[in-house]
Amino acid sequence: MQDRRGYKGSSLKFLTKENLSTGDLLSIRKGSTEYVGSLLPRYEYADENYITIKLLNGYNIGVRVSNIESVSKLSDGTKPLFARPTLPTIDSSLPRIVVMGTGGTIASRIDYKTGAVHPAFSAEDIYAIIPEISTYAQIDTAAVLNYDSENIATREWSIIAEAIADKISGGADGIVVSHGTDTIAYTAAALSFALNGSPVPVILVGSQRSTDRPSSDAALNMIAAVLVASRPEFSGVYLAMHSSSNDDSVSIHLGTKVRKNHTSRRDAFESINIPPVAYVRRGEIRHLGIPNEAKAKRFALRMSFEEKVALLKFHPGFDPGLIDYLRERGYKGLVLEGTGLGHVSSKCYEPIKGAIQSGILVGMTSQCIWGRVRMTVYSTGRDLMNLGVIPLEDMLPETAQVKMMWALKNSQDLDEAKNIMTTNIAGELVERSPIDRRQS
Amino acid sequence: MQDRRGYKGSSLKFLTKENLSTGDLLSIRKGSTEYVGSLLPRYEYADENYITIKLLNGYNIGVRVSNIESVSKLSDGTKPLFARPTLPTIDSSLPRIVVMGTGGTIASRIDYKTGAVHPAFSAEDIYAIIPEISTYAQIDTAAVLNYDSENIATREWSIIAEAIADKISGGADGIVVSHGTDTIAYTAAALSFALNGSPVPVILVGSQRSTDRPSSDAALNMIAAVLVASRPEFSGVYLAMHSSSNDDSVSIHLGTKVRKNHTSRRDAFESINIPPVAYVRRGEIRHLGIPNEAKAKRFALRMSFEEKVALLKFHPGFDPGLIDYLRERGYKGLVLEGTGLGHVSSKCYEPIKGAIQSGILVGMTSQCIWGRVRMTVYSTGRDLMNLGVIPLEDMLPETAQVKMMWALKNSQDLDEAKNIMTTNIAGELVERSPIDRRQS
Repeated sequence: MQDRRGYKGSSLKFLTKENLSTGDLLSIRKGSTEYVGSLLPRYEYADENYITIKLLNGYNIGVRVSNIESVSKLSDGTKPLFARPTLPTIDSSLPRIVVMGTGGTIASRIDYKTGAVHPAFSAEDIYAIIPEISTYAQIDTAAVLNYDSENIATREWSIIAEAIADKISGGADGIVVSHGTDTIAYTAAALSFALNGSPVPVILVGSQRSTDRPSSDAALNMIAAVLVASRPEFSGVYLAMHSSSNDDSVSIHLGTKVRKNHTSRRDAFESINIPPVAYVRRGEIRHLGIPNEAKAKRFALRMSFEEKVALLKFHPGFDPGLIDYLRERGYKGLVLEGTGLGHVSSKCYEPIKGAIQSGILVGMTSQCIWGRVRMTVYSTGRDLMNLGVIPLEDMLPETAQVKMMWALKNSQDLDEAKNIMTTNIAGELVERSPIDRRQS
Repeated sequence: MQDRRGYKGSSLKFLTKENLSTGDLLSIRKGSTEYVGSLLPRYEYADENYITIKLLNGYNIGVRVSNIESVSKLSDGTKPLFARPTLPTIDSSLPRIVVMGTGGTIASRIDYKTGAVHPAFSAEDIYAIIPEISTYAQIDTAAVLNYDSENIATREWSIIAEAIADKISGGADGIVVSHGTDTIAYTAAALSFALNGSPVPVILVGSQRSTDRPSSDAALNMIAAVLVASRPEFSGVYLAMHSSSNDDSVSIHLGTKVRKNHTSRRDAFESINIPPVAYVRRGEIRHLGIPNEAKAKRFALRMSFEEKVALLKFHPGFDPGLIDYLRERGYKGLVLEGTGLGHVSSKCYEPIKGAIQSGILVGMTSQCIWGRVRMTVYSTGRDLMNLGVIPLEDMLPETAQVKMMWALKNSQDLDEAKNIMTTNIAGELVERSPIDRRQS
């Protein structure tokens, strides 16, 4: 049976007439141009007058069927075969690095039948795809999870942290964790707390493009991650991703201060409020300095997280009833993403008061992303502090939420949790300078 | 009675001994340094060993009482008097610009007794503080609201839009709207839709520092806003704010593409996914080009907004019950801030399906801020599209929420609202280029 999923109207008519089905390799002539690529299925909102072709260079284009002068089928659609290459010989004097797989684009392979990127994963796949990493380290691999990163949360953070702790106690000199980029920054924050004071580097790494793409960033990111993981000065939790759209430099970000700030660029990740701690370029590490406050004195494994912590972004028309809902559902913590220096509408005061009186920890961050909350400047901020809302300084909202999940699960009472939230643990909270530069 | 609000312990003892009260102008000697400034009250979380002084340059500092060698009172605390200057004579050949007040820092004055910035507003105040604006335009002023901007929402947008429409029909050549910076970008988006196709410029302007501060950005921003409001090529809705921390350049941002990206910097505002449309420097306008798609053909006043539209940010551990809550509360629209290219956990699928089946419009944006959602790349995105979630392309989450509030109130049925959401109205949605560069 011919597969022409998603096509309708004139494009379906065209495919039927030409006897073409998705996956077929086609040569399409349109004016003086020839396009060679595989026919992809179309989706609901697609214009019915176009067919979609995945070009050999990896890009997809839409071609208007009425503009097609001629089409010929070069070959039938087939799924690509994946043959596992043999593993290289290992130099036993190199540092022992464990590369862990949790899912995500970095090791995904395109399914040519659908044109979509499926996170199909085993850490050995990475090793096979990027054999260069064996020049820096002895590689061991471990497939911990195989999840799209939007499905990774508290339970999975604990599983990853436990797998890492296990490898560290087994003698690993460094850990690389490959992870889908959607939530890799949340996981980096989670591991920064769960593995606080790690004696070895724990480097998270992702890829914005799958490895079949000519513009894939997977290899460069992974090589830099392994290199940094082999250096003891990076003990702690970091994230390695492209510094720019050029394929020549990788930024090493502190795990609690990094955010995905672009949906698709290779340099989507940025350190917020601080510079990256290092750049890796052509195998050389340029250190910019790891903040002192990011270095914990002892390795404390506290690997569980409280699920009942929400992150709510305030906006005009925000429904204060959402806060009541959380209280009624037995929530234990709430991080607000307020406006500006840390504000929400006065309509939220009563629900916030109720939440705090019910023993919910409520912290304030800013949706501005950069900068720090300062709740003493305007009366709105002071009103909220009087209700018991904790200003979370320059902490990223995402990091604050992860930290609160961790603080509530690893404290005896609310006061201790509150104290953890306002104390720097892993570089997430940089104190204001002694000169209190209000509004500066 | 002496006012020593917030002081306790050693600092209170010190103030009592020296007979000082908040508001007093002091000279404090500490080593070789002399600090001159007013004593401010302290807040709950303040260290009890410090007193806070507002220096004459506007900065606040904390001074440890045990380090103070000598202190003398220069004068008693007094509230500053505000004398209204006389208005300048008006050149009747200049364009007629209405400067509207809605509240916010730009016209606020410091209450020296508390050190806090109170939004005390009348548009005449601005005019009195920044008389230079009269060189570009005949100024009329109107105080529309006096709200902290975190309390401005749908009702206030309609009030502001109606006041502007009224002034336009009364013959104004341009409108300047001063507004608190916390939510000024939301209001800019709201006015972009409510006043779509405005025949005259509508320029929103704010200030990150109050006008008593040496580093205030109020004057430069206001002067640029009035200049741009006097130029018919800027008909439409824009936002004028500092381009950098230097006091020399103001960026003119398209009202649907601008975001507050820093809590306190003067250049906190950035155009997202497009450059600013112009810069104003020393009275000169450098045009970068207003996007064609931002120019509506006719002036359509549709000034009401649906309140029951929520913006929910997805995060690991996100409670899908929040979506059910909105459905039960009779919500009409939901904008999700997904991860990456537009994803949420599979746990949200059922609640989303239920919401859509109940007639709720559900749109997807990305918490990455930069870039665009592309829900055809991963199966997660396609699953959500199959449920009926609308990908909102490169729209900012905040703009998408405001637009949905407007679309739902200004359409006959859900299909029309859906059509509005996916059609560019005011430059908020830039179509993908014809070559569909997936993942690029």
